[in-house]
Amino acid sequence: MKPIDPKQKLTLFKDHWNPRVIAELNGQQVKVAKLKGDFVWHSHDEEDELFYVLKGTLKMEFEDRTEVIPEGEFIVVPRKVKHRPIAEEEVHIMLFEPASTINTGDADDERRRDDLDRI
Amino acid sequence: MKPIDPKQKLTLFKDHWNPRVIAELNGQQVKVAKLKGDFVWHSHDEEDELFYVLKGTLKMEFEDRTEVIPEGEFIVVPRKVKHRPIAEEEVHIMLFEPASTINTGDADDERRRDDLDRI
Repeated sequence: MKPIDPKQKLTLFKDHWNPRVIAELNGQQVKVAKLKGDFVWHSHDEEDELFYVLKGTLKMEFEDRTEVIPEGEFIVVPRKVKHRPIAEEEVHIMLFEPASTINTGDADDERRRDDLDRI
Repeated sequence: MKPIDPKQKLTLFKDHWNPRVIAELNGQQVKVAKLKGDFVWHSHDEEDELFYVLKGTLKMEFEDRTEVIPEGEFIVVPRKVKHRPIAEEEVHIMLFEPASTINTGDADDERRRDDLDRI
């Protein structure tokens, strides 16, 4: 029960597409991550995901369109919806999603992360 | 699946201690609220709560101490923990918590809100 500063947590690492857990509540986790480039197309069978942009501009590709999420805004991607995050410049995000969520969802990709660091 | 701007949502109302729902996922809700003054001491039997400060400085009183949460930081209050939010100046927050969460928890207070507006 101490204040948590997501921007300070983001100074603790530099790698992309490797979320860190910074808080847990109600079976959900709060994570931060740095993104750069195009991620893999994927979906999650049972998890809705919230992407909150702390720095930069995130693009989220869906099968029928692309949404642009500027700093200070967020988007919710419902379970089963195919999506692909894109960061043309480096983007810092905070994620709010079930603890069971795997970053690459149903995709086979070398950026899959199973045991996330807690920072 | 559109970007949501919590700061824009906060321009849509002026009253204090009356959270609005701006998104839902995984049985959780994202809410925004304006706070000013001292709230009521309370706890939630089954819900952990996350308070993220979008503007101003939030104080959270616990039975043994007070935490200060500045803009851009958050605090998680676990279920069953007695707490009292205090906003000496107006504070804008974003909440992540189960949809079942009642703002006043176990307290009897006229600021209780049962049917929150969705904006």
